[in-house]
Amino acid sequence: MTISVAVSGASGYAGGEVLRLLASHPDVSIGAITAHSNAGARLGSLAPHLHALADRVLVDTTVENLAGHDVVFLALPHGASAAIAGQLPVDTLVIDAGADHRLEDSAAWEKFYGSPHAGTWPYGLPELPGARATLAGAKRIAVPGCYPTSSLLALIPGFSAGALLPDDVVIVAASGTSGAGKAAKVNLIGSEVIGSMSPYGVGGGHRHTPEIQQGLSNASGLDVRVSFTPTLAPMSRGILTTATAKVAPKIAALPDPEAALRQIWADAYANEQFVHVLPEGHWPLTKSVQGSNYSALQIAYDANVNRVIVCCAIDNLTKGTAGGAVQSMNIALGLAEDAGLSFQGVAP
Amino acid sequence: MTISVAVSGASGYAGGEVLRLLASHPDVSIGAITAHSNAGARLGSLAPHLHALADRVLVDTTVENLAGHDVVFLALPHGASAAIAGQLPVDTLVIDAGADHRLEDSAAWEKFYGSPHAGTWPYGLPELPGARATLAGAKRIAVPGCYPTSSLLALIPGFSAGALLPDDVVIVAASGTSGAGKAAKVNLIGSEVIGSMSPYGVGGGHRHTPEIQQGLSNASGLDVRVSFTPTLAPMSRGILTTATAKVAPKIAALPDPEAALRQIWADAYANEQFVHVLPEGHWPLTKSVQGSNYSALQIAYDANVNRVIVCCAIDNLTKGTAGGAVQSMNIALGLAEDAGLSFQGVAP
Amino acid sequence: MTISVAVSGASGYAGGEVLRLLASHPDVSIGAITAHSNAGARLGSLAPHLHALADRVLVDTTVENLAGHDVVFLALPHGASAAIAGQLPVDTLVIDAGADHRLEDSAAWEKFYGSPHAGTWPYGLPELPGARATLAGAKRIAVPGCYPTSSLLALIPGFSAGALLPDDVVIVAASGTSGAGKAAKVNLIGSEVIGSMSPYGVGGGHRHTPEIQQGLSNASGLDVRVSFTPTLAPMSRGILTTATAKVAPKIAALPDPEAALRQIWADAYANEQFVHVLPEGHWPLTKSVQGSNYSALQIAYDANVNRVIVCCAIDNLTKGTAGGAVQSMNIALGLAEDAGLSFQGVAP
Amino acid sequence: MTISVAVSGASGYAGGEVLRLLASHPDVSIGAITAHSNAGARLGSLAPHLHALADRVLVDTTVENLAGHDVVFLALPHGASAAIAGQLPVDTLVIDAGADHRLEDSAAWEKFYGSPHAGTWPYGLPELPGARATLAGAKRIAVPGCYPTSSLLALIPGFSAGALLPDDVVIVAASGTSGAGKAAKVNLIGSEVIGSMSPYGVGGGHRHTPEIQQGLSNASGLDVRVSFTPTLAPMSRGILTTATAKVAPKIAALPDPEAALRQIWADAYANEQFVHVLPEGHWPLTKSVQGSNYSALQIAYDANVNRVIVCCAIDNLTKGTAGGAVQSMNIALGLAEDAGLSFQGVAP
Repeated sequence: MTISVAVSGASGYAGGEVLRLLASHPDVSIGAITAHSNAGARLGSLAPHLHALADRVLVDTTVENLAGHDVVFLALPHGASAAIAGQLPVDTLVIDAGADHRLEDSAAWEKFYGSPHAGTWPYGLPELPGARATLAGAKRIAVPGCYPTSSLLALIPGFSAGALLPDDVVIVAASGTSGAGKAAKVNLIGSEVIGSMSPYGVGGGHRHTPEIQQGLSNASGLDVRVSFTPTLAPMSRGILTTATAKVAPKIAALPDPEAALRQIWADAYANEQFVHVLPEGHWPLTKSVQGSNYSALQIAYDANVNRVIVCCAIDNLTKGTAGGAVQSMNIALGLAEDAGLSFQGVAP
Repeated sequence: MTISVAVSGASGYAGGEVLRLLASHPDVSIGAITAHSNAGARLGSLAPHLHALADRVLVDTTVENLAGHDVVFLALPHGASAAIAGQLPVDTLVIDAGADHRLEDSAAWEKFYGSPHAGTWPYGLPELPGARATLAGAKRIAVPGCYPTSSLLALIPGFSAGALLPDDVVIVAASGTSGAGKAAKVNLIGSEVIGSMSPYGVGGGHRHTPEIQQGLSNASGLDVRVSFTPTLAPMSRGILTTATAKVAPKIAALPDPEAALRQIWADAYANEQFVHVLPEGHWPLTKSVQGSNYSALQIAYDANVNRVIVCCAIDNLTKGTAGGAVQSMNIALGLAEDAGLSFQGVAP
Repeated sequence: MTISVAVSGASGYAGGEVLRLLASHPDVSIGAITAHSNAGARLGSLAPHLHALADRVLVDTTVENLAGHDVVFLALPHGASAAIAGQLPVDTLVIDAGADHRLEDSAAWEKFYGSPHAGTWPYGLPELPGARATLAGAKRIAVPGCYPTSSLLALIPGFSAGALLPDDVVIVAASGTSGAGKAAKVNLIGSEVIGSMSPYGVGGGHRHTPEIQQGLSNASGLDVRVSFTPTLAPMSRGILTTATAKVAPKIAALPDPEAALRQIWADAYANEQFVHVLPEGHWPLTKSVQGSNYSALQIAYDANVNRVIVCCAIDNLTKGTAGGAVQSMNIALGLAEDAGLSFQGVAP
Repeated sequence: MTISVAVSGASGYAGGEVLRLLASHPDVSIGAITAHSNAGARLGSLAPHLHALADRVLVDTTVENLAGHDVVFLALPHGASAAIAGQLPVDTLVIDAGADHRLEDSAAWEKFYGSPHAGTWPYGLPELPGARATLAGAKRIAVPGCYPTSSLLALIPGFSAGALLPDDVVIVAASGTSGAGKAAKVNLIGSEVIGSMSPYGVGGGHRHTPEIQQGLSNASGLDVRVSFTPTLAPMSRGILTTATAKVAPKIAALPDPEAALRQIWADAYANEQFVHVLPEGHWPLTKSVQGSNYSALQIAYDANVNRVIVCCAIDNLTKGTAGGAVQSMNIALGLAEDAGLSFQGVAP
């Protein structure tokens, strides 16, 4: 069976990464590749790393061009996905790499995005408890944000197990610059970002904050509040998330809280092929997951402050966007979950 | 007046940075330059950026070679400074860039460093309340660690003002690789660190943790506990510290807690030439302080979690080590505080 | 058919890259993974990006451990390969990623490597004229050096066509730091190489010089002399080679020498799936081939100096080492030439 | 004596670097700081590394704002300098960091810049033979391009001494991204340039080509032709130039041509404080000159091809632009040549 797939937003980094993965997916045939202002361009001039697709010409992002495929990936600015998706056939699998359909709380959407809420789709993070059942056969999938992917992978096991307290979660994450998109902005040029770390969206304003809170609250049944600070690191790919939360008394009272915590994470991910809980003494490096769908994480307990600290590394464009999207597609279509994703990290 | 200065540990990054600064200090004459295994080498072969000193030959790090100068900088592995310092004349100004004399609590020293405590020296962070009075005329100065420098600059105003609560401080910092020293280790080679973020010392084990707690506790009169996680960033210099603490009810109850907090920091640093509280809307970039003695910081309040988030950027080798050391020397000797330090950041 | 493969030297970058590629090769089963000083270690502790192989334990690099596989990859220091290879069965396919069997001229070998010559094996650069016929069914293959791979891809079409003069070839190449290996040397640590370009082996002393001259001389039937200068660039992967040669009068006299030259290259590589002659106006970026077996190149003619300038980008570890090795293995074994290699570059 | 200085084009990298240097120049008072589209902005919002000048407000780049200073630095797009300069008083020292007044050959100007030639000013490379006599008292100075600075420093001694042949010069240079300016272009954003090397202006089209040829021809009295290929390296600052030329028979016939060549360069630069001919066995690193006015170079002779290879490292923004400009200003005004420039490289 060959699945025909269309990819919109192909001139951006998310769309380009979807194409990179699909180009070597064994079950997929790439149909329409669409863009907005870059329609008419050769893909090779925009994404010269996609050698096998270099001579493909981008067409306009229209319903006409996208319809007629088994799967449509949307990698569009927020707000744009909903408009397109609403016109695509209900039996087409539509996978939205944008934010439009991630949040369940319309008020949170409107506060953080400033526009009417388009509704909620099944959330494409297969490692969440119960997610695969929802994704199997789904026709609409919302791909999680990159920071939420790493933050939820880092903390969900603890919240699901009731091992963490909801009211003092602090997350600081460092992202490669591709997370800021392929935009011609002076503050993103190499001369500015090389050799520099900087924060942004400080103080709770980043749009991924409510998405992280939603995931942790759903897992715990509690109202989890998160202090989230993203920073920009001088690398093109990768997210290193440092997530910390207060540990519940039932765990803190154990003789070896760290071992207990490690066991909770190990159990949660025992059958997850893309989540690598590292052996004790090893800590994740973003480069170890570069270009791959893997995440790597490690857990420590700091008795001095009664906190768990979990560090999680993903590639923001792969597991954090396009890889997670393809993984979800595979589940939705009943393919092998790792079809097209069974490659290792690119290091050094 | 020309001050004669000896610099030990010149083959390491801290010693090299001291030399870089002293080479253009208007009041200083550089005497002995010492090293351990590199004694006998030309400085130019070890530190080719020090063109003006390239033909100087390193001599052994001995009391004989160091004595006879007005000032001696020690940039030695911890444990080594105390042995040397004890044999230097009491009226020689000895400035220890190492850790030996920073901590006041012998038990904390022994827990984190595993050796007997060598005693406490005046702490060379001039921006701390009361520090200049202690440093003026001092003959022994302990240079703060790089992470403590940025962490204390970030949080001291709030703790001094009673605006922050002591029991939930979380600090995550990203450092350039020079913070790990000039050591031939596989995990530090360029191929490994370029393009990668990674944590280390997670769970409270980093030796700078008790030093940060000491500074915050002294400023507040409270027992401040800190969750501190350092990370390594793919750049050679710079620290970006993200520090967050719960805000005291008296501030949180104000109509505009963020404005109140910003005012506290602005007042605290109003007369500090090397601390740049940025205008609202601007966030610090490590590159903006690269190679300089400046620090840059910004403050936000997140009402959702009742936390202040302060981001502070310094150059770990300059303000975080050698610049702070020279600044303290200037104060101790009654020189202009910015003598040899009045240069801007090197950017882009 | 599943081919059993052993990989030696797995703790180095070349061996690690061979494993990265083989881990998703559809026709291969990875048998023994060997190392020297790291025997006994988990692969995950040395190469944390190889998640699927993380729990494999390295064994000693011995003939016993390597024998009994269909294919053996040697990624050993020069000199070591020959000793091992001589003891492996003659019907085992032995692929040497080291230098031992590349040179045809024993005198050149001895001059540049300072040891007795071990003999010459079929040269694993399939894109050379006639190479595939030699590689098909071969039982011993010498993988070209990374700089020779890019230099020969850059210039062979011109020399094969008699379009270039042999006596003034100048090649300057920039390599990522992984080309210097996974060695704990101070001059390779991130703090030293980040933000820095530097040359090495200047003046004709680099060991790849005779290998480049050999390839160009064989293609042209002339005694080609090359001025070759390698430089180290602040990136972990990739080679950008700038190669320039005087143009033969028969081409220079044409009305449009650049078009004629471009046609020669386009014709030479018309059927090469891994060599991407870019459309006019586009120049190669090393990142566009990162992690892939592709090479990208472009040609210009400078009438002012009557020179062709060809720029060629490869990934030094993939097409320049492990990718070329796997491609040659595929040819030798009669597999699809792109088996396990059909992935795109990892960018941005 | 305090010299009043105006700086135009302060929002670009060249103008910013002039300000960085002037901010700690002992004899200078910074007057008007001008820009075009950024007039009205705080300097701190555009150049946050210039802490001491952060609150200065940029004014329009007009003759009115620039006149009335002792010195005016122009860091404007080519074409714009001449228009302004023509209206400034003849006794104001005008230093043009742009290209308008570098070339002596109007035809070359028009071919490479496509506009009428504005005339030739004294060329601000003090290390050229005879340059200081021309610069002393000069009221108009053309600052050399960054690539010409490094290329001429690399090759002038050999051409001045008649040791090199004029007809086969090949120069390949790698520049940090700041050489491409502070422009919001997608191909310059960090995600694109980090981890990537790429060539540009290949085939003789780069505008610095005629400037390099002019300098070498003037030094030798011959018609020197140069093949020049610039490349972009993943670092923000620095140029590494690899320059090679055929060696004249009189040198090649000597018993030790390399020693003879090294002596020529050593003699030429014996009294140059900013040109560091490295000891044998050491090669230049761009980081060793980062942020400084130094250049570092080394010479090799390759008997196999009878070529000298000279590698020269400068900081493109300092020695290659603003440092050379300040050095020339110092000479023109009779100040100490190193006033405001006596700082070392910033490394690691």
